[in-house]
Amino acid sequence: MKTAILSIGTELLFGQITNTNTVYLSRELQLLGYDVMYHYTVGDNPKRLKTLIEEIFRDCDLILTTGGLGPTQDDLTKETVCEALHDNLVEVPEQIEILKANFSRMNRKMTENNLKQAWFPSRAVILENDIGTAPGFALSEGEKTVISMPGPPREMTRMFERQVKPYLLKKQDSVIYYKIIKTYGIGESQLETVLLPLINNQTDPTIATYAKEGESYLRIASKRKTSKEAETAVNDMLEKVKSIIGQYIYSCDDETMAEVVVKLLKEKGLKISSSESCTGGQFASTLTDIPGSSEVFSRGYVTYSNDAKINDIDVPAEIIEEFGVFSGETALAMAIGTKNKSGSDIAVAITGIAGPDGGTEEKPVGTVYISVVYHDKEIINKHTFRNAGRKYIKNCSVLAMFAAVYSILKEC
Amino acid sequence: MKTAILSIGTELLFGQITNTNTVYLSRELQLLGYDVMYHYTVGDNPKRLKTLIEEIFRDCDLILTTGGLGPTQDDLTKETVCEALHDNLVEVPEQIEILKANFSRMNRKMTENNLKQAWFPSRAVILENDIGTAPGFALSEGEKTVISMPGPPREMTRMFERQVKPYLLKKQDSVIYYKIIKTYGIGESQLETVLLPLINNQTDPTIATYAKEGESYLRIASKRKTSKEAETAVNDMLEKVKSIIGQYIYSCDDETMAEVVVKLLKEKGLKISSSESCTGGQFASTLTDIPGSSEVFSRGYVTYSNDAKINDIDVPAEIIEEFGVFSGETALAMAIGTKNKSGSDIAVAITGIAGPDGGTEEKPVGTVYISVVYHDKEIINKHTFRNAGRKYIKNCSVLAMFAAVYSILKEC
Repeated sequence: MKTAILSIGTELLFGQITNTNTVYLSRELQLLGYDVMYHYTVGDNPKRLKTLIEEIFRDCDLILTTGGLGPTQDDLTKETVCEALHDNLVEVPEQIEILKANFSRMNRKMTENNLKQAWFPSRAVILENDIGTAPGFALSEGEKTVISMPGPPREMTRMFERQVKPYLLKKQDSVIYYKIIKTYGIGESQLETVLLPLINNQTDPTIATYAKEGESYLRIASKRKTSKEAETAVNDMLEKVKSIIGQYIYSCDDETMAEVVVKLLKEKGLKISSSESCTGGQFASTLTDIPGSSEVFSRGYVTYSNDAKINDIDVPAEIIEEFGVFSGETALAMAIGTKNKSGSDIAVAITGIAGPDGGTEEKPVGTVYISVVYHDKEIINKHTFRNAGRKYIKNCSVLAMFAAVYSILKEC
Repeated sequence: MKTAILSIGTELLFGQITNTNTVYLSRELQLLGYDVMYHYTVGDNPKRLKTLIEEIFRDCDLILTTGGLGPTQDDLTKETVCEALHDNLVEVPEQIEILKANFSRMNRKMTENNLKQAWFPSRAVILENDIGTAPGFALSEGEKTVISMPGPPREMTRMFERQVKPYLLKKQDSVIYYKIIKTYGIGESQLETVLLPLINNQTDPTIATYAKEGESYLRIASKRKTSKEAETAVNDMLEKVKSIIGQYIYSCDDETMAEVVVKLLKEKGLKISSSESCTGGQFASTLTDIPGSSEVFSRGYVTYSNDAKINDIDVPAEIIEEFGVFSGETALAMAIGTKNKSGSDIAVAITGIAGPDGGTEEKPVGTVYISVVYHDKEIINKHTFRNAGRKYIKNCSVLAMFAAVYSILKEC
């Protein structure tokens, strides 16, 4: 069913708050098999709201609204939806009782305008709100339905989970299943080019590509009568995708590269340590963002100066002199020194130029050297990232460090 | 001018990503004096996009779009906007050269579909994108204007700042001037309470408070005929604000706490070093995000395990045994060890519990100890942050580390 999400509230148009309701509802509706075609946000203005509802219903059959259900003067969702769907408001006696009980429970005084909240469209199904004062409602006219929920995310998600979801499930005759496939080492346009035969020949499952910083994602989605059918369709397509780009895939379960690396380290019972120059601790920080990472990570060194490289992780001064601090040789010496110093199984090191200064013609800003050592294996990778700012280079560098560790882990 | 923000991308409708572009643009447009009336999101579907543009133009004169400018088949913003505003696409030779140069610099192969990005509506003003491959554009027909920018937030914000903002400023007959005032150590509601007399009595300049993770911001904005008038009004108000909450303000120039600390270290010619347990390198990483930080930062230690604390930065094992690893004594020993080892002027250290495990009744998840040493000064701060997830605790901890360093620097 073609669906739109409509957020109501002037504060959203001011950019004062991020609209998390819409993200939540999009994801949930998607999983229930509803096709979310549009998101809309409009201020607390009944005329614009009514016009918008009429416009949306030209293309959609279902609108979920959030916000504008409160007791104040500018909360006009109920009146407007009622008008747009040609119904009239009636006072609902049991809602007055619920309101009174709510207020006495909260030890708050009920004002005259609160009584507004006991009025509902005569044909509406009322959706109770046991953690706030504004109930929601669902109202239909022919094929068209509006479901209105309060704006505060905690109240909205609770109402959705407990009342709206069961309501929507009953309306649906198909379900959606999807997987996010994450790849490294192949750009979005190349990904699309090699998968074009699959993309063009399919209406279901659908395949979509997304460019992310330093990596590319694929989404494979299917809409079928049962979740089992949809899942099978997605998995069959995944096999075809794997046969073409299998070597670039690092996760089919929406994990980050860092999560995949930590998982592999745990599985293999290995410990890792790191030394970082240009990334300045971001590798260690990203790794330790993951709960339980202390099991696999004992320590890291942020060896920003040459002196730190020489004194803290025993990089021979001659190597820096001979090959320069930005070199594969220095990266390797850093990794070896870090491994010896920390006693970890694996060590990863990086040296390079994050900019804005320090670049040369031969080694421009964005040039980094990454080394990983493990047993008798030694990797040295050179990357030249686009000079799109220091943070961009750091982000791509950290991802490349994890990818280098991953390349060793998946083979050992 | 009545304005709408239109986000384009099926991934947004799936709820895979939060739409931060819209929040950013809403706030910026607001400050430029544009009236944002609607937010829209639509998928990569040219028919719906075109209908939507036509509908929006019934009520608005300006549409800012983000997304759908990439090289792949489903990126159809340019074609559709061109059609809606009755223009035709032409190949722009200099854009082909720019594209080629971008690809060769990135060492990436240019595919046929990338060439699409060199076509633009014939009447368009092209907005360059020096950190991505998809340029934006502005296209008008009579009173109606569409400005299209790429979807990746980093590219979009840069394009907006450098090219769209000046373009929009020229269209306006009044100017906005504003300052972001950053405070630490006072909550948003307290801030609002103490500033209420100023907030209530003013229509221009306006004062708005924002709660951020671990800190609070104020925006003082004025809209006047000339920028000089607006600037004077803002600065006069800032003096009043300072007289009330001066001790909490760390920046009136929209700098981060880390930027303020790096600036002070540079001014005073001091070097800093760090050792981190629960923040796992995030302090060092945040510091080294700032260009030129190598002048003031030589090295950092991520001493995740006790062993690392004892061996790498000489924390006496007895201190950990006697007071526990999560204690002010251990934090102080870490800071002293780090200062001695690195030879820096100042050292900052942290130990604590980022969770999800490791909390006790006495020291729940979110308890951290921060120590700073400088000459004969020693600080030990204990914080108990809300257990709102590992990342939240890390973020608040790093901010508190910078704030502790700042408290020493501003007095020395």
